[in-house]
Amino acid sequence: MTLPTIPSLLDAPAGVAAALAHAIDNKTKPLGSLGRLEALARQVGMIQQSTAPELREPAILVFAGDHGVVAEGVSAYPQDVTWQMVENFLAGGAAINVFAAQNGCALRVVDAGVAHDFGPRPGLADRKIAKGTRNFAHEAAMTADQCRQALAHGMALVDTLPGNVIGFGEMGIGNTTAAAALMHKLAGIPVAQCVGAGTGLTADGIRRKQQVIEAATALHAGVEAPLDVLAAFGGFEIAMMTGAMLRAAERRMVLLIDGFIVTSALLVAARLQPAIVDYCVFAHCSGEQGHRQMLEALGARPLLDLDLRLGEGTGCALALPLLHAAVNFLNRMATFESAQVSEQSA
Amino acid sequence: MTLPTIPSLLDAPAGVAAALAHAIDNKTKPLGSLGRLEALARQVGMIQQSTAPELREPAILVFAGDHGVVAEGVSAYPQDVTWQMVENFLAGGAAINVFAAQNGCALRVVDAGVAHDFGPRPGLADRKIAKGTRNFAHEAAMTADQCRQALAHGMALVDTLPGNVIGFGEMGIGNTTAAAALMHKLAGIPVAQCVGAGTGLTADGIRRKQQVIEAATALHAGVEAPLDVLAAFGGFEIAMMTGAMLRAAERRMVLLIDGFIVTSALLVAARLQPAIVDYCVFAHCSGEQGHRQMLEALGARPLLDLDLRLGEGTGCALALPLLHAAVNFLNRMATFESAQVSEQSA
Repeated sequence: MTLPTIPSLLDAPAGVAAALAHAIDNKTKPLGSLGRLEALARQVGMIQQSTAPELREPAILVFAGDHGVVAEGVSAYPQDVTWQMVENFLAGGAAINVFAAQNGCALRVVDAGVAHDFGPRPGLADRKIAKGTRNFAHEAAMTADQCRQALAHGMALVDTLPGNVIGFGEMGIGNTTAAAALMHKLAGIPVAQCVGAGTGLTADGIRRKQQVIEAATALHAGVEAPLDVLAAFGGFEIAMMTGAMLRAAERRMVLLIDGFIVTSALLVAARLQPAIVDYCVFAHCSGEQGHRQMLEALGARPLLDLDLRLGEGTGCALALPLLHAAVNFLNRMATFESAQVSEQSA
Repeated sequence: MTLPTIPSLLDAPAGVAAALAHAIDNKTKPLGSLGRLEALARQVGMIQQSTAPELREPAILVFAGDHGVVAEGVSAYPQDVTWQMVENFLAGGAAINVFAAQNGCALRVVDAGVAHDFGPRPGLADRKIAKGTRNFAHEAAMTADQCRQALAHGMALVDTLPGNVIGFGEMGIGNTTAAAALMHKLAGIPVAQCVGAGTGLTADGIRRKQQVIEAATALHAGVEAPLDVLAAFGGFEIAMMTGAMLRAAERRMVLLIDGFIVTSALLVAARLQPAIVDYCVFAHCSGEQGHRQMLEALGARPLLDLDLRLGEGTGCALALPLLHAAVNFLNRMATFESAQVSEQSA
C-alpha cells in the first residue's frame, strides 16, 4: 500500500495567493475586518487554487470502533454504548444527526470495528476490521496488517464521496484512552497532560486511565514510527480516519477536524505528511483536557471554543456555517468599486 | 414615555428550570458534553418558559446614523461611507446581506439619522431623527427630546417584527468613538482602554480619538444618568437600538448582541434594566479593543471569537446557527430511554 503524498500549499504558485488577497481586500469592509473568516477564505481558495472557491456536497463521516482497553475500566460508559449509539445514528436521534441536518451536511456512518453484529443495514458502511481492537495494556491493539486494512478502507471511502468538503467524526467507548496514548507518543507530551475525563470519569477514574497508559507505553517501549504507534495504541476508527484524511488532502478537499480523537488521527497523518494541516479547518477546541495542547502541537487554531466534548463530528457540523460564510463573502460581497463606496482616507 | 420593565429570569418559577435540566440531561450524550449549547438551550427555554422552545422568523435590524464628532478626525473613512453602505445594504452587497441570507435571517435596514436624503426606498425604514448628531466635542450629541424619540422609534420597530429572535447591527462612521465614550461613562473604564482602531485608525489616530473623548467627558462632566449620557455622547442608531432592546426583552424575545457599538447600546439598557442581559445572547467578541472589557462589565461570555470588527450585525448572523443548534438538540435528539442506549455506569 502506498500512502498519499501531500504537497504544502505554501509551495503553490504565488499568483493565486496575491489574487485572493486582492479580492478579499477590495470587498466593502474595512481591511481585515472579517478576521479569521478572511484567513479561512484564503485557505479554501489556496486549496482549490481559485479566487472563487466552491464548497460542494459536504459530508461528515462518523467512524465507529471498539477498544480492547476498556477491559481496564477506562470509561464511564459500558462498551455496548458504541453499537447502541451507531443504532442511534442510523435512527437519526443523535446530536450529529440534528446538527448535520440543520447545516445541510450529509452524514455517513462507518462500522470500522464495532464489537457487534449489525447485519446489512441501510446507511451503515460495513468496513469492520474486527470486533474491536485488542487490549493494548497487554498486546498491540491491532496487527500491522489490520492497520493497513483500516488505512486502505479510509482512503477508499473518500473516493466514494461526491463533494469537496469532508468532516470527521467518531464513536467508540474507550477511544479517548487510545487518543491520549497516541498524543503522548507522537507529540511527546507527558501522559498526565494527555488524559482527561472522556465521557465523564471521576478523578479516580482519570488516575486509573493515566496508569493504564503509562504501563502500556512501557510495555510497547520500542514502538516509535507513526504507523507502529497507530497499530499499538490506535483504534480501527482512528486508523480509518487517518487513511481517509490522507486521501482527502491528496484530492484537495477541505478537511474539517473535530475534537480530541479526530485530532489524534490527524496527528498520525501529520507525522507521515506534515503538509496535511494546510488542508485542515480545525472546527473547535474540545472541553476534553489535552485537546488544546494537541492542537498546539499541530500549530492549529480552532474556530469554535464551546466546551463541547461529545465527538461524533458535532464540532464539524457546527463549524460548517462559518466555512460557508468565508466562501460566501468572497464570492458574493460587492467591491468598493462595484458598490461605489469610498475607500479608506487615512 | 415609559420605558419597559424587564423581569429577571432568575425570578421565574423554578419548575421550568428543573424540567429543562432534566430534558437536557436525558439526551443521548454524556452529561454536559454539549457545553455552552446546553446553557444556551436552558436560556432560550427560560426566556420562553418552555422545554420545547422555538425560534421563529429571526430578524437582524441594522440601524444607521451619522455622528457630528467625525469633524474631529476620529475615523479612517469619510462620513459619506455611512449612506454609501446603506445603499450597499439595500443592494444586497454587504457582508451582512451575505451572512443573513446564508443563515435564513431576515434583514431590515433603519435610517436612524444618516446625513443623506435617501427619499422613499423599499427596504429602508425611515426613522431619521436628524441628519447626524451634533459634535459632542462641543455640545451634547442630541437633545433629550431627540433621545426620547430615538428610543420610542426603536421600541415601535420591535412591535412590527413577526418573530421572536432579534439581532442588532449598526452602521455609522464615527460610532466607535461614541460607543467608547458611553463605555467610559457607564462602565467606569479608563478612556485609553475603551478606544480602539475602529475601521482602521493608525496609532496617531487612536491617540487623537482618545484625546477627543477625554476632552468631551470633561466638557460634559456633570452628566451621569444613563439616558443623559446617551444623549450627550450617543448616536441616533445607538439610542434607537437601546429602545429596541428594552422592548424586545419585555416581549421575551431572544436578543442577539453583536460587537462594540451594539454592546454599548446594551450597556445603556442594562444600566436602566439590569435583567435585560438574561435575554441576551452575546454573538461574538470583536477585534475592536475594548469590547472584551465591555462584555466583562456586563458579565457576558460571547459565543464566537473570530477577530471580526465589521459591525453591521455580522456577528449575530454568524452566531445564529449556534442558537438554532441549541434549540434543535433540545427538541430533536433522542433520550437514553427512547433510543435504548445504556446510561453512565461509573
